[in-house]
Amino acid sequence: MDWQGVFASRMGRMKASEIRELLKLLDQPDVISFAGGIPDPGLFPTEAFREAFETIFAGSAAAALQYSVSEGYGPLRDWIAQDMARIGVPCTRDNILITSGSQQALDYLGKLLISPGDTALVGWPTYLGALGAFNAYEPRYDQLTPGGNRGAADFAAAARAAGGAVKFAYVSPDFANPTGETLSLREREGLLDLAEALDIPIIEDAAYLALRYRGEAIPPILNLDIARSGGIESARTLYCGTFSKTLSPGLRVGWVCGPKAVIARLVLMKQAADLHSATLNQMAIAEVAAAIYAPHTAMLRETYSARCAAMLSALKTHMPEGVRWSEPEGGMFVWLTLPKGLDAAVLLKRALETQRIAFVPGAAFYADGSGRDTLRLSFSCASPALIEDGMKRLGTVIREALVAA
Amino acid sequence: MDWQGVFASRMGRMKASEIRELLKLLDQPDVISFAGGIPDPGLFPTEAFREAFETIFAGSAAAALQYSVSEGYGPLRDWIAQDMARIGVPCTRDNILITSGSQQALDYLGKLLISPGDTALVGWPTYLGALGAFNAYEPRYDQLTPGGNRGAADFAAAARAAGGAVKFAYVSPDFANPTGETLSLREREGLLDLAEALDIPIIEDAAYLALRYRGEAIPPILNLDIARSGGIESARTLYCGTFSKTLSPGLRVGWVCGPKAVIARLVLMKQAADLHSATLNQMAIAEVAAAIYAPHTAMLRETYSARCAAMLSALKTHMPEGVRWSEPEGGMFVWLTLPKGLDAAVLLKRALETQRIAFVPGAAFYADGSGRDTLRLSFSCASPALIEDGMKRLGTVIREALVAA
Repeated sequence: MDWQGVFASRMGRMKASEIRELLKLLDQPDVISFAGGIPDPGLFPTEAFREAFETIFAGSAAAALQYSVSEGYGPLRDWIAQDMARIGVPCTRDNILITSGSQQALDYLGKLLISPGDTALVGWPTYLGALGAFNAYEPRYDQLTPGGNRGAADFAAAARAAGGAVKFAYVSPDFANPTGETLSLREREGLLDLAEALDIPIIEDAAYLALRYRGEAIPPILNLDIARSGGIESARTLYCGTFSKTLSPGLRVGWVCGPKAVIARLVLMKQAADLHSATLNQMAIAEVAAAIYAPHTAMLRETYSARCAAMLSALKTHMPEGVRWSEPEGGMFVWLTLPKGLDAAVLLKRALETQRIAFVPGAAFYADGSGRDTLRLSFSCASPALIEDGMKRLGTVIREALVAA
Repeated sequence: MDWQGVFASRMGRMKASEIRELLKLLDQPDVISFAGGIPDPGLFPTEAFREAFETIFAGSAAAALQYSVSEGYGPLRDWIAQDMARIGVPCTRDNILITSGSQQALDYLGKLLISPGDTALVGWPTYLGALGAFNAYEPRYDQLTPGGNRGAADFAAAARAAGGAVKFAYVSPDFANPTGETLSLREREGLLDLAEALDIPIIEDAAYLALRYRGEAIPPILNLDIARSGGIESARTLYCGTFSKTLSPGLRVGWVCGPKAVIARLVLMKQAADLHSATLNQMAIAEVAAAIYAPHTAMLRETYSARCAAMLSALKTHMPEGVRWSEPEGGMFVWLTLPKGLDAAVLLKRALETQRIAFVPGAAFYADGSGRDTLRLSFSCASPALIEDGMKRLGTVIREALVAA
């Protein structure tokens, strides 16, 4: 059977991610890993979940195990709508579609918007999983530079020349994966100006929004959009949220928030693609969110904040001259730029061999494969002491590489 | 914001399903409904699930709530591989991808195989959800008639003329939704002959396989394929299984079984589309399957078998001349063909108004919209007494319609 001959053309874009292959190799017990981008499982609200499942099985087991509607569990959509209002986005449950994590939201939005050859505007670097999700729909990427001065006409002409149109701008405005950086209010407004000029939607990936450790919260792009357009029904921003960084990633519960007309199309898409996200999981998330969301996320912020501070302080102590890094106000990541001439992929090999530490080389996060002098460090799963030790080792590896270069 | 202008071309194929809109209207307490195609929630193994969740929370809560690998939970894949061997398909966990229900398997297989304009061979009628999943990838459909004598060259030429190629044949060989019919051994072999001649895969949808009430089991197409090709690695059949009809649909756990090379591509696709199916749910299904699968499915067969027999007997008693129906050996559905001149959609309105009974008009299951004289009856959720009452009422409605026509 000639499988290559029968695969759809889009499969040419779906390659094994180097970074994920790499992460498998890094999973060794004696390696101090700053590579993963996952929440600390020791901080999961397991007791609250245990109680939630007990409650559900005591009262609504049959509903929890049965098929349910594609748009998602009503009480959970209500809770999310209330939480969206709290961050400045007045909306109702009809503006919310429950997805299986925000990864599924990105896949659905790619499916909704991209015809092959269309252009997606993304950062250089950007979230690897967004590129993976969009790739299935065969887009061309163009470089979105927040605060940059390339005009709408230029983006539109380049997209037209490539045989498509600009379909959306994708951005993670708060403590982005991989850079940890946050868009300023001015950059957010500038992005809305650009989207208006191109008449395209903005995909706002808010995966880390709840994890701000210092500084003032900046309004979500959807909030600024509503202020301009008059309400969520006339907004152009599609907001992707998730419980993966706050309550549990393993239950796969995220959401899209946007105008009803768009949510209705996404509901049809979900119906055709997997009917609905697991009923029981949505009920459990609704129970746990209602019971402990505010104090639990406060605890997460306190814990991760200390780890973030430990990493920034250790970097200051141990990095040689010429190394630069982001100073995140939240999230899970610090983005590091190496001195000229160093390659993060080569450095990783050396770091594993000589110092037993791991990180993610940055090139994987660039749509064009550039960024070989960058790397991503995650502080979410290590204690401050381990972070101090790890950054000391990283400093040693970089110094040795500089001598060797 | 001009949303129509920014949607991908595939969105033109994703319309609200009339049948699903209809099903919402039918959800009235005084209506006897034979419309839904869902398992009886009264038969869910709720106690086994309650215990499974208790066990998981006592021993492996952190793993259950954390991210996990895209291919699925190892012990569950092992259990499925063993169960596949039991039905004549020797394979290992590397031949199994866990999906969020078999609906997601159909979506992924459409994504894997269909470029816009390619041809999918499907039955007239066929599973509505398969058409919905495939539509997102903009196929052309051609009519697959089991035991029919249209040759491979004819299918290939028609596909070429339409600007694509035949990419797969989709079939549900056992007690299919919507017809309840089963392909004979000879029809299965004939389908394999056709697939070989076209060098295309077969998608075998085995959603109802475990629910055989009478007659001898016929080998799955994948089993016959392996007998020809020498082993699963050289087979062309992609088998879609699910726990939705046996243990719980709400947990969204299904699988694809096929050659490793194809499973590996699907794993990449899943990684990009939703990372993985919920960890906890996979662990719970693994626990419950290991504990009670055989006796639980035996109980289901006994219960549903009685309902199926009640429906067939009541149809015999109450249907006027000219009405024909399938005689399923398993599953959840009986397929009914009305006397000439009657339209099932018109009949449904009358049935709801005058007799307070509901069913699904058959046209929705035809890729070309034909089949207006057919309807689907489900016996899965009604007692034998209610079924007797309902079929009597259906007979009355059909008789009245015949008089009016």
